Amino acid sequence: MSLDPVLDRIDQDLDTATDRLLALLRIPSISTDPAHKADCDAAADWLVKDLESIGFAATKRATPGHPMVVAHGGDGDGPHLLFYGHYDVQPVDPLDLWRNPPFEPAVEDTAKGKVIRGRGASDDKGQLMTFVEACRAWVAVHGRLPGKITLFFEGEEESGSPSLVPFMRENAEELGADIALICDTGLFGEETPAIISRLRGNLTEELTITGPDKDLHSGMYGGIAMNPIRVLTRILGGLHGDDGSVQVPGFYDGIPEIDADQKAAWQALGFSERDFLGEVGLSQPAGEQDRTGLEMIWSRPTAEINGIWGGYTGAGFKTVLPSQAHAKVSFRLVEGQDPDRLRGAFRGWVEAQLPPDCSVDWIGHGGAPAGIMDTSDPAFEKARAALSTEWPREAALIGCGGSIPIAGHFKTVLGMNALLAGFGKDDDAIHSPNEKYDLDSFHRGIRSWARILDALTR
Amino acid sequence: MSLDPVLDRIDQDLDTATDRLLALLRIPSISTDPAHKADCDAAADWLVKDLESIGFAATKRATPGHPMVVAHGGDGDGPHLLFYGHYDVQPVDPLDLWRNPPFEPAVEDTAKGKVIRGRGASDDKGQLMTFVEACRAWVAVHGRLPGKITLFFEGEEESGSPSLVPFMRENAEELGADIALICDTGLFGEETPAIISRLRGNLTEELTITGPDKDLHSGMYGGIAMNPIRVLTRILGGLHGDDGSVQVPGFYDGIPEIDADQKAAWQALGFSERDFLGEVGLSQPAGEQDRTGLEMIWSRPTAEINGIWGGYTGAGFKTVLPSQAHAKVSFRLVEGQDPDRLRGAFRGWVEAQLPPDCSVDWIGHGGAPAGIMDTSDPAFEKARAALSTEWPREAALIGCGGSIPIAGHFKTVLGMNALLAGFGKDDDAIHSPNEKYDLDSFHRGIRSWARILDALTR
Repeated sequence: MSLDPVLDRIDQDLDTATDRLLALLRIPSISTDPAHKADCDAAADWLVKDLESIGFAATKRATPGHPMVVAHGGDGDGPHLLFYGHYDVQPVDPLDLWRNPPFEPAVEDTAKGKVIRGRGASDDKGQLMTFVEACRAWVAVHGRLPGKITLFFEGEEESGSPSLVPFMRENAEELGADIALICDTGLFGEETPAIISRLRGNLTEELTITGPDKDLHSGMYGGIAMNPIRVLTRILGGLHGDDGSVQVPGFYDGIPEIDADQKAAWQALGFSERDFLGEVGLSQPAGEQDRTGLEMIWSRPTAEINGIWGGYTGAGFKTVLPSQAHAKVSFRLVEGQDPDRLRGAFRGWVEAQLPPDCSVDWIGHGGAPAGIMDTSDPAFEKARAALSTEWPREAALIGCGGSIPIAGHFKTVLGMNALLAGFGKDDDAIHSPNEKYDLDSFHRGIRSWARILDALTR
Repeated sequence: MSLDPVLDRIDQDLDTATDRLLALLRIPSISTDPAHKADCDAAADWLVKDLESIGFAATKRATPGHPMVVAHGGDGDGPHLLFYGHYDVQPVDPLDLWRNPPFEPAVEDTAKGKVIRGRGASDDKGQLMTFVEACRAWVAVHGRLPGKITLFFEGEEESGSPSLVPFMRENAEELGADIALICDTGLFGEETPAIISRLRGNLTEELTITGPDKDLHSGMYGGIAMNPIRVLTRILGGLHGDDGSVQVPGFYDGIPEIDADQKAAWQALGFSERDFLGEVGLSQPAGEQDRTGLEMIWSRPTAEINGIWGGYTGAGFKTVLPSQAHAKVSFRLVEGQDPDRLRGAFRGWVEAQLPPDCSVDWIGHGGAPAGIMDTSDPAFEKARAALSTEWPREAALIGCGGSIPIAGHFKTVLGMNALLAGFGKDDDAIHSPNEKYDLDSFHRGIRSWARILDALTR
């Protein structure tokens, strides 16, 4: 089956493909917020219906959390491909920073070209639809898919994927394939397509420090009573050293240095710390001061305070000494770091610093080790070549600072390699107000998957 | 005019006096929250009407913020007394910790006796009504007040009193009197009536640290981008030293040591740090470790983080690197400390610690120096004797850790001494959920003012 008419069809169908994505983006499927449970369900229903319209045997599958969507299509003796994406999205706060409502998506003209604006446009609804649209074009032109394809969409990726591994285990036979394809990553820079060779893991913790057993008035108790915000800031204020390193004991134990070849390959990418940080109003790398920018985001672990709150945070002023103070802290982990061991190390480090009369309570929100891809699988070279044909620059093998634990689960639970390629850009503002996906990313993304499908099934 | 029938009348009228207080407590006059502007106005109207029913010439007086209530009554050659209180109340959050709605007050039986429960019961509606009810009883029994009395009620005490000094200046002649009486303080312990000899001042600051110009995803930027929560916790985590002292340079400059007599008098009060802290679930004094508990709350300054917020604080987890992080910080000041100088010192101390790429914005919420009372005024001894007669123990001259800037304003703007006596208890939970005022405090408080009015006008 020839590729060119499929690519032509994709070009002709771009407007209606965009309309389909806009429809999916209108569903506020925020997985972390229980108030949006029905919306997550609605997004799964939308996908089932759309996949059925292409000819997939699609089903919505219940889990203790939000449902999975599993769809099967195509046949043939070639490799069986499994494509993964997630239909859930991040919360939208701070809502007042959105120029348009996050779930009223639209195509906008910008100085850098047309963009699709709305929560989930890039992460991950726009990206997962690139693959769906490639399948649709193939079926439209040739009457059938180029090979055996299973689609597997999750609705809990933004809330720690609690149902994922149990579901994979229970449905291991059905989900078994030769390789997993994942579209939840980005280009390198503006127009270099990229395949991920390593992903950071993560570890997320929420802590509550309790001091007095009730809120107090700082006039009456200020000076004599311990304030839990003082304790929390003192402990978390020591999470990083002056050199940017994380101060939890043993945090860096067991982490291998990247080898000289890898270092040289990254050097060759011409990454500009100045440009990367300049895009977001910064100029100075804030991580370990003896590391390069790419090491900071790809091969070195980090600790971040993602949320902090306590006391009076409304308008005006209230001279309260609160009973409790809270924080959400996450770590990005790299090869050699064990999430369970580091969870214990972090908790121990905090607990050892508690002053008298204060206690700490913990909520562990999840954790996953880093992933190192087996790039010797021939599929990587085939996909790299396909991407290099579609884009202005040759495709690169790069690291990813984010955590896509599914890649590790495909390996450990289902025994298959994962190939991650995506078309997001650094300025997509994923997880932030005014998220967007370039229309060009969407268009070339669809074409890229058509080319990769062709290359892997030929 | 004899005192005894007035005291009898107060005893007989306690139930209806309580009902009046409950009516005032039902008005949610939270001054710091713009949503409650009409409620503040309603509380002022309620007071005007009530004072008119006693025979005062009462007026509601507009300000750029919430209105003042000024009322005049009585006559005679004796000293002209001015009584001050405030009808506004603190915010009620965290609302979920209230056992009953904060503005549905009720009289409750507790193991320690009857209490009036509701926001403002103690701070300051219950306390201001002790004076109003004393006046009412006097008029009921004798047909007139014992002397010339002016009442002056403010509605912005819990939000920094922005209109107070301008109003005092504009109405200096009308508000001029021989001494100001203020009921916004507490007993010492359970049953020792107290007159304030010193008040701490205050200084309140709100700061916002900005790092990146938008919220970022910690997968993509974690490690390389500066997180403003990291900056905020690092700076504020250094606000106190290991010895509990405040680290802002020059913070303790110019503070006199209390003299040996004062020290001995405080020693004689038998203050128990253990009991005071035990009431709120604490055991260790958290202030400067070389100071006594009474020094920590009466004669030494302090710094407190009253609120902190940034990043994702909702349910679940969001791996965001926020663009901004915020805190509200207040200082309790003592004799020798200038609020303006310390505001500059604090801001300078924060700004000197900002890393590259981060900026800080400030909102100054107000400040007032500490107050030292002129206890040689004969009114102090008369009031002390009156209180000693009413209560089981002799009245004490004590310090107050809170800030009641009005005391200083009466001195500097109107040239009169302020005598502060109040009937709150340490466990009243002012500024906290489930605020209460002992019915006994309300009852003896009314009787106390009747006695003081008698003593000062005789």
